[in-house]
Amino acid sequence: MNKEINKIPYKIYLEESEMPAQYYNVRADMKKKPAPLLNPATLQPMTQEELSAVFCEELVRQELDDTTAYFDIPQEIRDFYKMYRPSPLVRAYCLEEKLQTPAKIYYKFEGNNTSGSHKLNSAIAQAYYAKQQGLKGVTTETGAGQWGTALSMACAYLGLDCRVYMVKVSYEQKPFRREVMRTYGANVTPSPSMTTEVGKKILAEHPGTTGSLGCAISEAVEDATTHEGYRYVLGSVLNQVLLHQSVIGLETKTAMDKYGIKPDVIIGCAGGGSNLGGLISPFMGEKLRGEADYQFIAVEPASCPSLTRGKYAYDFCDTGMVCPLAKMYTLGSGFIPSANHAGGLRYHGMSSTLSELYDQGLMEARSVEQTEVFKAAEEFARIEGILPAPESSHAIKVAIDEALKCKETGEEKTILFGLTGTGYFDLKAYESFNNGTMTDYIPTDEDLQKGFDGIPQFPGNEI
Amino acid sequence: MNKEINKIPYKIYLEESEMPAQYYNVRADMKKKPAPLLNPATLQPMTQEELSAVFCEELVRQELDDTTAYFDIPQEIRDFYKMYRPSPLVRAYCLEEKLQTPAKIYYKFEGNNTSGSHKLNSAIAQAYYAKQQGLKGVTTETGAGQWGTALSMACAYLGLDCRVYMVKVSYEQKPFRREVMRTYGANVTPSPSMTTEVGKKILAEHPGTTGSLGCAISEAVEDATTHEGYRYVLGSVLNQVLLHQSVIGLETKTAMDKYGIKPDVIIGCAGGGSNLGGLISPFMGEKLRGEADYQFIAVEPASCPSLTRGKYAYDFCDTGMVCPLAKMYTLGSGFIPSANHAGGLRYHGMSSTLSELYDQGLMEARSVEQTEVFKAAEEFARIEGILPAPESSHAIKVAIDEALKCKETGEEKTILFGLTGTGYFDLKAYESFNNGTMTDYIPTDEDLQKGFDGIPQFPGNEI
Repeated sequence: MNKEINKIPYKIYLEESEMPAQYYNVRADMKKKPAPLLNPATLQPMTQEELSAVFCEELVRQELDDTTAYFDIPQEIRDFYKMYRPSPLVRAYCLEEKLQTPAKIYYKFEGNNTSGSHKLNSAIAQAYYAKQQGLKGVTTETGAGQWGTALSMACAYLGLDCRVYMVKVSYEQKPFRREVMRTYGANVTPSPSMTTEVGKKILAEHPGTTGSLGCAISEAVEDATTHEGYRYVLGSVLNQVLLHQSVIGLETKTAMDKYGIKPDVIIGCAGGGSNLGGLISPFMGEKLRGEADYQFIAVEPASCPSLTRGKYAYDFCDTGMVCPLAKMYTLGSGFIPSANHAGGLRYHGMSSTLSELYDQGLMEARSVEQTEVFKAAEEFARIEGILPAPESSHAIKVAIDEALKCKETGEEKTILFGLTGTGYFDLKAYESFNNGTMTDYIPTDEDLQKGFDGIPQFPGNEI
Repeated sequence: MNKEINKIPYKIYLEESEMPAQYYNVRADMKKKPAPLLNPATLQPMTQEELSAVFCEELVRQELDDTTAYFDIPQEIRDFYKMYRPSPLVRAYCLEEKLQTPAKIYYKFEGNNTSGSHKLNSAIAQAYYAKQQGLKGVTTETGAGQWGTALSMACAYLGLDCRVYMVKVSYEQKPFRREVMRTYGANVTPSPSMTTEVGKKILAEHPGTTGSLGCAISEAVEDATTHEGYRYVLGSVLNQVLLHQSVIGLETKTAMDKYGIKPDVIIGCAGGGSNLGGLISPFMGEKLRGEADYQFIAVEPASCPSLTRGKYAYDFCDTGMVCPLAKMYTLGSGFIPSANHAGGLRYHGMSSTLSELYDQGLMEARSVEQTEVFKAAEEFARIEGILPAPESSHAIKVAIDEALKCKETGEEKTILFGLTGTGYFDLKAYESFNNGTMTDYIPTDEDLQKGFDGIPQFPGNEI
């Protein structure tokens, strides 16, 4: 059915020896660096010491280092990667044929592991450094559940204790996600809980609450800071996470270079930015160094449009306001996104690094509505044989749009997108789409203003 | 952490050009052939014409041909395989280290596709031949749901209508499986239903019934035979299915030959026999031709022990007794297995080909209890990073047993097992294991006798 099959295989798998030996830190090549995290009490940059009370020491070093371009990947992490990496770079021959486009479409598929997403790339690194520091365990929060699952797997492998605060509504509605974590030995607590002071306080004030990510973060941080030998870990937004996720882009670039492929457009979904940042890092590095040019597109839900409609300002990373201030595109830490099915994209802010790249005009952003995203997801599933996660399907939607534009113009562009994960635990969402009961929601300017009103005001942070 | 990593990678992926171009038919190398299917009315072998009323013509030809060793795989099927194959042959370095065994353990992992199992290998072949024959669609039954999902994916790819009768209790208890099939455009009907005569009859007799595989088969066969342009397809037991599944063994053998690996023991779980038959076929061929020797072990649940405790006789393939008689190891078509969580292994009989090989002493069989299977599954998940299906975990259990024997004896055996699928849709079972509420059940001799009493009696079929 296809023409060039002999030249480029359906799936490019690197050899183990071709897998990256170092993480790439895109901040090193940025002339204007992302703004530092601030201590909300002093408005001064957070120090190694301050951050080390919450996070592992080596991870804090990675977080604060914006000049070192490459960090060696320890052998134990590389061995773990070999269990599920290299991930395939897939040529979407079937999709191209179906769309009748002259464009060449590729996707890097990160879903072929039990956590179901790219989150495992950073989970094992964070668990490794916690173990190196001699810690007993780590705490975290999880909403949709991918991050909690990934961290559970990494901790089981290394023999670390793993304590996950899972937003209560997800804990109850996604019992299977919870069971995967339990199978990997994690202690999963529905949040808010009676095991933390902040949880007790919230339950006293709102007895029937089903929880929120902000509350779960606060509980996980309290748990880590009040128990000897524990630290808190986070699956997105932070610079360290983008650093670890650079393995996605590094593998992609090696595979493409091997076959002489150069992408014109690189597309990824963006919630906190971990997948998009990881995918584009080495390509963005080339662009920053003036060695090559690429078009980068971040895709976000129209219901939670931090890049396309947010403000670029210092804001809290969590709704509980216990974390440092980060400069980022934000909808305000009090913004409550509608119940969009792409749980991984329901975050009010965006990675500081990606925010700065976007602000410098080095990256574009688009927002899409969820029913059209699921239409693209279903089409993709039937044609390419992979049931995609709702989050990933945002990138699919824009990749298809771009390929159809090529059909109109006749351009033979090479399109690359990140397929971050599978939708096996999102079938409630697919059911709602299959039944025709899925709806769209776009916040009004007034809705957004309420969120913006909560952004802290101080000299230099006017919005 | 490991020694020989440089020699053998964690995962061996073949190149697309190394994927099999032909299916291998192990019956061609058997001196004593499997017994033919019999027409229950005449007790004469079923003819091409008789079988073609129910099955696609080319598939009937494959079913009846026990002399042709190789069948070309059509290009369109090979292109589809490239979307999710070659599947990795994994060296279980982490498991070996954990067990401290001198044994070398390999597994062929068939779960990295959206259907979650090896079933897709035969689904695409059967759908392809249906399409070639100019049919509108196919009908089938599904219990646990892997086969129905695989067939839905294959039909969506080829534009065929797909009508799945899903055992009512599974339809209600596994809504997510159902939604995957619907996302792939399949028409999924809970069985028994009011859309067939046999369904109406059963519902009139047993108004509250939650259905059975036997009933769903009867409905699917009636649907196919009463609608122009439809045929019935089946995901296991039949010779044609083992033929298609030979791609598992052929890829494994190519990968092993490439690295100079020769397995001593080959282990697979056995329900109807599709995975085990596919995995062992090319190795068994060598054994039959006297070119090499291997130990083969079929693993079945102690709750449904067709090989280890069944009778070798002609029996009905379905509880509704609408299908031809097959000679096989059987517990009787009326045997009702306990509610074991490995739905794919709850079948009263066994592939005729495997039954004959077992009867000739060319293959061994073992039965294991489900709590020890889940213990092995959880251990494997934590060590190797893959959450296995309950069915596949039967093979894991025996592979671990064999590796531990090597630890005692000091033998450096090479153990190969088939990891047929993932457990993402089996988390109710894991939940029961995690909660400590899982139980075991072994049928008594009296239980088995009731099943044996239903085996048809005729001259030459005494049990």
